[in-house]
Amino acid sequence: MAQNRRVLLASRPNGAPTPCDFRIETGPMPQPKEGELLLRTRWLSLDPYMRGRMSAAKSYAKSVEVGDVLEGGTVAEVVETTNPRFAVGDVVLCGNGWQDYAVSDGKGLRKLDPSVAPVQTALGVLGMPGMTAYTGLLTIGRPKAGETLVVAAATGPVGSAVGQIAKMKGCRAVGIAGGPEKCRLLTEEFGFDAAIDHRAPDFADQLAKACPDGIDIYFENVGGAVWDAVFPLLNDFARVPVCGIVSHYNDTDLPAGPDRTPQLMGAVLRKRLTLRGFIVWDFADQAKDFARDMGEWVKAGRIRYREDVVDGLEKAPEAFMGLLQGRNLGKLLVKVS
Amino acid sequence: MAQNRRVLLASRPNGAPTPCDFRIETGPMPQPKEGELLLRTRWLSLDPYMRGRMSAAKSYAKSVEVGDVLEGGTVAEVVETTNPRFAVGDVVLCGNGWQDYAVSDGKGLRKLDPSVAPVQTALGVLGMPGMTAYTGLLTIGRPKAGETLVVAAATGPVGSAVGQIAKMKGCRAVGIAGGPEKCRLLTEEFGFDAAIDHRAPDFADQLAKACPDGIDIYFENVGGAVWDAVFPLLNDFARVPVCGIVSHYNDTDLPAGPDRTPQLMGAVLRKRLTLRGFIVWDFADQAKDFARDMGEWVKAGRIRYREDVVDGLEKAPEAFMGLLQGRNLGKLLVKVS
Repeated sequence: MAQNRRVLLASRPNGAPTPCDFRIETGPMPQPKEGELLLRTRWLSLDPYMRGRMSAAKSYAKSVEVGDVLEGGTVAEVVETTNPRFAVGDVVLCGNGWQDYAVSDGKGLRKLDPSVAPVQTALGVLGMPGMTAYTGLLTIGRPKAGETLVVAAATGPVGSAVGQIAKMKGCRAVGIAGGPEKCRLLTEEFGFDAAIDHRAPDFADQLAKACPDGIDIYFENVGGAVWDAVFPLLNDFARVPVCGIVSHYNDTDLPAGPDRTPQLMGAVLRKRLTLRGFIVWDFADQAKDFARDMGEWVKAGRIRYREDVVDGLEKAPEAFMGLLQGRNLGKLLVKVS
Repeated sequence: MAQNRRVLLASRPNGAPTPCDFRIETGPMPQPKEGELLLRTRWLSLDPYMRGRMSAAKSYAKSVEVGDVLEGGTVAEVVETTNPRFAVGDVVLCGNGWQDYAVSDGKGLRKLDPSVAPVQTALGVLGMPGMTAYTGLLTIGRPKAGETLVVAAATGPVGSAVGQIAKMKGCRAVGIAGGPEKCRLLTEEFGFDAAIDHRAPDFADQLAKACPDGIDIYFENVGGAVWDAVFPLLNDFARVPVCGIVSHYNDTDLPAGPDRTPQLMGAVLRKRLTLRGFIVWDFADQAKDFARDMGEWVKAGRIRYREDVVDGLEKAPEAFMGLLQGRNLGKLLVKVS
C-alpha cells in the first residue's frame, strides 16, 4: 500500500536554513471521507516567501509550526473522489504543501486544462509569481513609455515577467542577476535591454552606466547590496513596488551602522519617491485581468518563462536552500510524481 | 531717504544655524523701471524648508548662495507702480525673501483682499502650509472615517490643519507637540482627540496608549524619535505622506547603527505600507479646490489657526533658529512693516 511522504519543519532556522531544519516523515495515506477527494501532488512550487513562514516573526500570514508540513503551492491530480464536481484524473491547483498526498473537500481548488498550457505554469508565469509581477508592476510601478525599470532576481519567475511586461509598456528594462549565464539569458531570451551581474566587483558602476537616465521604477525583491546600488540612481517621482527583500530573509541581526533611515526618508521626501509594499492577494480583484492578459501574452510568445525542475520531493529542502542563494535558473519546481 | 535692509546667508550652517550664518545689510532702495512695482514687505513667512535652502545639498529647489538674500514667502504692499495692473496700496502675495523692499514686474503676484481674511493667512492656513496639509493628507493619506491619524509638530500651521481636516473626515486625530502648553492647545483649541508631549520620558508608551487601534495615517514632518515611536504602531496598509523630517535638518552625520533600513523595508513589505514624499507644488492642480474648501472651512470656524508673530526683520534669524527647535507656537511670521 502507498505511503505518504511529508516534509516537516523540524526546527526554526537561525539564519540560513540547514538540512537539520527539515525532516522527511513517511506515514499512512490520508483517507478521504464522503464528498472528499484524494490528491496526489505532481508539482510543488518553491518560493522565497516560504522562508518567512519558517520564522516565528509576525507577518501577513501565519507561521508554519514546528512539526507541521511545510506550506507551498501545488499542482495535483485527483486519484480518488466521491465529490461529484471532480473526476479521477482531473488536475487541480491547490496548496497541499510539501507532501505526496492530501485530502480536500474541493473548496478553493482550480481545475487546470493541460491543453491550454503545461499545468505547472499555474505555479509560475500563469500563477502567483506571474500575477505578482503583473499587479505590482502595473498598479504600483505604473510604467510609462521611455522610463527605465530595474529588477533583480531577474531570471526568476517574478523578475523575468516584470522585465518583459515593462518592455511591452515601452520601458528600458535593466535586469540584475548572479553570474554570466543568467545575464546572457536576460538579454537573449527575455529581451532585457541590459543585464548586470551583481557579483561583479564594479556592480554599482555597471548599473549606473546601464541607467544613463536614472531609474523610474525599481521593482524591489532582493534588498541589500542591490538596493544600495539602486538608491542613488532613483529619479524624482520614482516608484518602488516592494515585493520582497530576499537578501535579508536569513538575517539574524540588522547590518552595522550608521543608521541610514534618515537618508532613506530624506530621499523619499526630496525625490518624492513612492515606496509601497504589497503581496499578490492584495490585488485579488485583478485575477481575471491577469489570467486574460498573461494567457494571451504567453500564448503569443510575448512573455517567455524558464523553469528549473528538481526531481523528487526528497530534494525539496536542498532546492529551497539553493533558492535563497540564487542557485536556481528560472521558476523552481519540484516534480513530485 | 529710505534704505533697504536685507538678511543674507553669511555662511552655510554646519549643524544648527547660528547667528554668524546670517548677516543684515543696509543698502540703497531698489529702483523700479518702467512697468515695474516697488513692494514693501509687510509679512515674512518662516518655514522649516528654508533650512534646506541654506545647505549646498542637491534637493528639489536650488540652494541660496552665500551672500544672497534668504528666500521666503512674503506679503507686501505696492508703494510705487507704473504697472497698470496694480495700484499703490494693493497687497500681494509674493516671494521677496528676507528684505524690506523688492522690485517686481508683476508676474506671479497674487492680489490679496483684506476684507476676506487677514492678509498674512496667505502665508499660513490659506497658503503654502495649509495647502501642504490639505494635499498631502487627502491625496496620499486618504483618510477614512474610523481611522487613526497621527501628526507631529501638531500646533504648527501644517500639523494643526492636518489634524483638523482628519477630524472632519471622521478620523481619530492624535497630535504630538513639545510641552504642556502646546498639548493643551491641541485638544482645547484644535479639537484633537489626544495630545502627546514628545518630551515626556514615556512618550512612546503614551503614544501607543493614545492609539489603541494602531495608526492608519502618519503624516511625517519630523522624523527621528517620533518616527521611531510611530513605526511599530503602523497598521497594515498604513499611508505615510512624507512632508518633512525637520528633526534631521541640522544633522551633520547619520545616527549610530545598526542600520535599520532592512527593518523599514521589511515592514513596508509585510504591512504593505505606502511611504510617499511630496512637496506642495507637486499638487499645484489642486490649488483651486484648496482655496475653495479651506476658505469655507476657515470662514465657518471649522479650521482654526494660531499665529506666532515676531516684530521686526532683524529678529528673523533668531526666530528661524527657534523654529527648528520648536520654540514657536503656531505659524511663525515676521511682521516687517
